[in-house]
Amino acid sequence: MKKLLIATFCITFFIFNTSRAQSDEAVIKSLYNNSLTQGKSYDWLNYLSNQIGGRLSGSLNAERAVKWTKEELDKLGLDKVWLQPVMVPKWVRGGKEYAYIESASGKSTTVNICALGSSLATPSFGVKAPVVEVKTFEDLAKMGSDSIRGKIVFFNRPMRPDFILTSNAYSDANDQRTKGAMEASKYGAVGVIVRSLNLRLDDFPHTGNMSYGDLPNSQKIPAAAISTNDAELLSTMLSLDEDLKFYFKQNCKQLDDVLSYNVIGQITGSEYPDEYIVVGGHLDSWDLADGSHDDGAGCMQSMDVLRLLKITGIKPKRSIRVVLYMNEENGMRGASKYADLAKQNNENHIFALESDSGGFTPRGFSFDCSEAQFNKISGWKTLFKPYLIHYFEQGGSGADVGKLKNGTTVLAGLRPDSQRYFDYHHAENDTFDAINKRELELGAATMASMIYLIDKYGTN
Amino acid sequence: MKKLLIATFCITFFIFNTSRAQSDEAVIKSLYNNSLTQGKSYDWLNYLSNQIGGRLSGSLNAERAVKWTKEELDKLGLDKVWLQPVMVPKWVRGGKEYAYIESASGKSTTVNICALGSSLATPSFGVKAPVVEVKTFEDLAKMGSDSIRGKIVFFNRPMRPDFILTSNAYSDANDQRTKGAMEASKYGAVGVIVRSLNLRLDDFPHTGNMSYGDLPNSQKIPAAAISTNDAELLSTMLSLDEDLKFYFKQNCKQLDDVLSYNVIGQITGSEYPDEYIVVGGHLDSWDLADGSHDDGAGCMQSMDVLRLLKITGIKPKRSIRVVLYMNEENGMRGASKYADLAKQNNENHIFALESDSGGFTPRGFSFDCSEAQFNKISGWKTLFKPYLIHYFEQGGSGADVGKLKNGTTVLAGLRPDSQRYFDYHHAENDTFDAINKRELELGAATMASMIYLIDKYGTN
Repeated sequence: MKKLLIATFCITFFIFNTSRAQSDEAVIKSLYNNSLTQGKSYDWLNYLSNQIGGRLSGSLNAERAVKWTKEELDKLGLDKVWLQPVMVPKWVRGGKEYAYIESASGKSTTVNICALGSSLATPSFGVKAPVVEVKTFEDLAKMGSDSIRGKIVFFNRPMRPDFILTSNAYSDANDQRTKGAMEASKYGAVGVIVRSLNLRLDDFPHTGNMSYGDLPNSQKIPAAAISTNDAELLSTMLSLDEDLKFYFKQNCKQLDDVLSYNVIGQITGSEYPDEYIVVGGHLDSWDLADGSHDDGAGCMQSMDVLRLLKITGIKPKRSIRVVLYMNEENGMRGASKYADLAKQNNENHIFALESDSGGFTPRGFSFDCSEAQFNKISGWKTLFKPYLIHYFEQGGSGADVGKLKNGTTVLAGLRPDSQRYFDYHHAENDTFDAINKRELELGAATMASMIYLIDKYGTN
Repeated sequence: MKKLLIATFCITFFIFNTSRAQSDEAVIKSLYNNSLTQGKSYDWLNYLSNQIGGRLSGSLNAERAVKWTKEELDKLGLDKVWLQPVMVPKWVRGGKEYAYIESASGKSTTVNICALGSSLATPSFGVKAPVVEVKTFEDLAKMGSDSIRGKIVFFNRPMRPDFILTSNAYSDANDQRTKGAMEASKYGAVGVIVRSLNLRLDDFPHTGNMSYGDLPNSQKIPAAAISTNDAELLSTMLSLDEDLKFYFKQNCKQLDDVLSYNVIGQITGSEYPDEYIVVGGHLDSWDLADGSHDDGAGCMQSMDVLRLLKITGIKPKRSIRVVLYMNEENGMRGASKYADLAKQNNENHIFALESDSGGFTPRGFSFDCSEAQFNKISGWKTLFKPYLIHYFEQGGSGADVGKLKNGTTVLAGLRPDSQRYFDYHHAENDTFDAINKRELELGAATMASMIYLIDKYGTN
């Protein structure tokens, strides 16, 4: 009798699991098919990139992007679409930057630079000074104030090519950009030039945010990025002529904060409307390009996740939200506001997914969650195998969803192929022509499939 | 005592396996590091693509490529480098093709076409005829000779976007290109226009080989590819005006076979010199571009495999050969010659790896081998995990290594990310600027790592 019971249980379990698996397989196949044959992410991104363009927080374009994405979400027949007001910093680049290397003999060679986000301008006549090249903050300490005072510090530690995930090479090198000015100022430097965070050699300077930390205004010094080719040039010229001078002029300015918005759309859950699943990207971008990869791609994919669920006939049990965060690049104000209000309103977020690593072929997800939650989600890996999605790893999610971290919400980041991302990141070539339609659509389908499974099975 | 023996065995087995695994991990890490920090594949490809260029079999450029690759292999200090003579077909495109659509009212619209490889020319004054659009050979049969005779058949079945691997979408659609003229001719067509095998909409016509099968000369008709944008245009215009005419003129010609070469380099094995492991790509390319992805990438990666093994200090037990096959695109003569001679000389090839799917981020390998061999090789998957190489699947290897198939040799193909490949395949944009250095180098390292493991552990 006992054996019979066990056998019955096993058969029932097998049948239940088989039918469940087949059904999920069919739904996920439909999501991929729909994204690849009638996805909207690519057309939407074409509009965002080519009709609106770069959209730094506080800019007119950022407001146009808010208005347009809300209009597009309104057309999808969601249960609710709204704007969430948030005050954001407004930094403006001003006229194009200019820089040259001046040899001891007076010959000058122009180089490609751009101001780092949040940096001060130079004085209107620019800054000209001798240069010291360093790789690390330890180098600064070793040299000391006597060697650095009155000079421009040139941070020239390349991104390491031997990291397989380029995001790790970025993490390894970006202290130069984010804290270089703050550190160099302590030794009396008058300006900072930072090698662009780019793994290849080319002529594009890559901007990105920096911070002065707690430095008093009197000690803040201007900071700019230099293209990798020109970083190599400057380094070579310095090795031949340590008395050369570097000149740069930039015209950027931090203005008063202005009102902007997160853009939010929601399908309200049929069974557990008070449990929220969030998918999103950041709507702001840097100003040098149209921000197609960073992060127009993630926003348009996230919008299409809700649309794909709808056209695939999925009626979620839980409430699914797309959130287009404002101001990821230079303040994180949108994500902070969203998380603050979620907390204040006691909203139970069970899952938050971010796509902010470019619109390349999706490889999988990284998760920030408990071991048990990770094991549960990893159990779905076989469902993703036909789509060549294999990367399920603990560690890291995304800057915006990170604000929702509370020990129970599962945070996740889409992980597209990372090899080309830093060719474009924060530079003037981050434009729509660098996007491949299928890669973008595969990403949207991968996100939609994960959201479908989370909605169906929960996270615990 | 028995328990003790088992315990001792288990511990020994554990230690043996752990040390083996660590050592392999370290070697593979070195191979990747060396490829990413001092790889030559990218510089070599720059030379092949930009200093030599397109290299269709029998062309002067193909001979320059033979000479230059042999010279580069000579510099590597291999045990043996040689040329393997082979007679190859010589097809020449002649002057650029020209085509237009002529509406019933006489208005003409020029469109982008190119002759398919091995096609005949049109008469010198071109071909002008009404058009019938079909999707399949079954469509031809349904229409019959009465509807087709004297007309141009327009094959317009798109590559299916819902396949995840684009190579499957290619296989699904390429009968139109390879056999379209042969089939349409049977119904009295006077020419064939084939939608380019390209998943995106753009203006590039994609060439590629076609065959007339056993058709007598009198029944051979000219065949050309049309860009996907112009295929859409032609289809739309046909739907509005079924009496429109299509004109095309092409000037290609099949000349007599000429002498060419496979280029081969070898590190002779220290223990089993008579067991051969082959890695290669095809040195010929189509003539419309420099063939960076197809297959300059695979050739340069294969050359770098031997170099990476050397600089990493690996002394193979078996003989490792790089083979750059001539004439994959329009005849497979090089691969046939290599396989014939290998058989004639009783060479025991245990493994043959091909890279001929573009220089994109490597995802893994496909294998054509026995279940036991596949299981053995799949046991190494964990060694590749840190490099995001996860795809180990049975089925398909590569056209060139396929000639070595004999039931015992393991055949394999590198599988890079496939999403962008057919954007470039056989078209004039298959150029060096479409190559990402890191992606190419990761491919070379992945191939070198597999060759290292095969050499160390064999295939059985």
